Amino acid sequence: MTKKKLGPQPLLWPHPTTIVGSHVDGKPDFAAVAWTGVAASSPPAITIALQHHRYSLKGIYQNKTFSINIPSRDLVKEADYCGLVSGAKTDKVKDCGFKVFYGTLATAPLIEECPVNLELEVAHIINMGSHALVIGRVVETHVSEDCLTDGQPDINKVRPFIFTPGKYHAVGEAFADTFKIGKEIKGKG
Amino acid sequence: MTKKKLGPQPLLWPHPTTIVGSHVDGKPDFAAVAWTGVAASSPPAITIALQHHRYSLKGIYQNKTFSINIPSRDLVKEADYCGLVSGAKTDKVKDCGFKVFYGTLATAPLIEECPVNLELEVAHIINMGSHALVIGRVVETHVSEDCLTDGQPDINKVRPFIFTPGKYHAVGEAFADTFKIGKEIKGKG
Repeated sequence: MTKKKLGPQPLLWPHPTTIVGSHVDGKPDFAAVAWTGVAASSPPAITIALQHHRYSLKGIYQNKTFSINIPSRDLVKEADYCGLVSGAKTDKVKDCGFKVFYGTLATAPLIEECPVNLELEVAHIINMGSHALVIGRVVETHVSEDCLTDGQPDINKVRPFIFTPGKYHAVGEAFADTFKIGKEIKGKG
Repeated sequence: MTKKKLGPQPLLWPHPTTIVGSHVDGKPDFAAVAWTGVAASSPPAITIALQHHRYSLKGIYQNKTFSINIPSRDLVKEADYCGLVSGAKTDKVKDCGFKVFYGTLATAPLIEECPVNLELEVAHIINMGSHALVIGRVVETHVSEDCLTDGQPDINKVRPFIFTPGKYHAVGEAFADTFKIGKEIKGKG
């Protein structure tokens, strides 16, 4: 197999499409964010990477709180719109027709139409150069009841989708069991 | 839409399945890691979250370098195996039949069979409780030539896959254009 060097790139596939919410100057704003990551399970923490000029980042600095909303495929237009325009110039809540609600935190606006909503408090913000890496502690998780199976969030009902440069992709079929299929190798060595 | 509160959870879908490489006591070791994130584009940086007891983390502390390898669907057994067993007790390279190569960094082992390989240097390690959040700078990116289209990595050729609790999922079909489909909303407000 021949390999080609492409220089340093943040090449990591696939990643979820998310809509991050914050209060900027007292008003809810939402931004599409592709670069997220899980940082810990206990206490649960998540990272998001935002360019310094992003309007929503201003709100995160103001209140030290934010939300992560996971849209289903039906919301691809709205999610894309939240990445196309700045909240400094537009009212995305109005343009997208979002119904906003709040949970535990008064300044972490949540989108009712998104099947999964996380409320977060800022734990750290690290200047990484092009982006601010915001590390948040999850304070509460909200899931639409029709997206649960036996009380647990069901990816096939949530129908999250993937952002790649150029295209949004669906989540495809399940094809193997985790912590199981690898056992076929065990004992081989 | 009725929402149910599930308490704080690190609920973020979907995430890639990756195999992280490091040198532990001078020997290459590989660990399956589901919790990763992009932290910046310039200079490019990526986060990985590892439980403190993970053997591969020992190597990351020893050398301040690591690799991220993105397996294709054909390697699901091997990737799962790298999450089932500890490198302290097994030789995963031998068991999985991996061909290991090196790029710029002498202590960031890369898996030739994985179509995408990143070499990273540690920028920060943050203790997040259950996990250590390792933030690495990408030093070099290697992509198998047969996974490029017009010189760029092609997700349909790389065929990365998704880890969810219980199931590995494929990446599904492309269904919309990024920074484009949202324009249908523009001017609506």
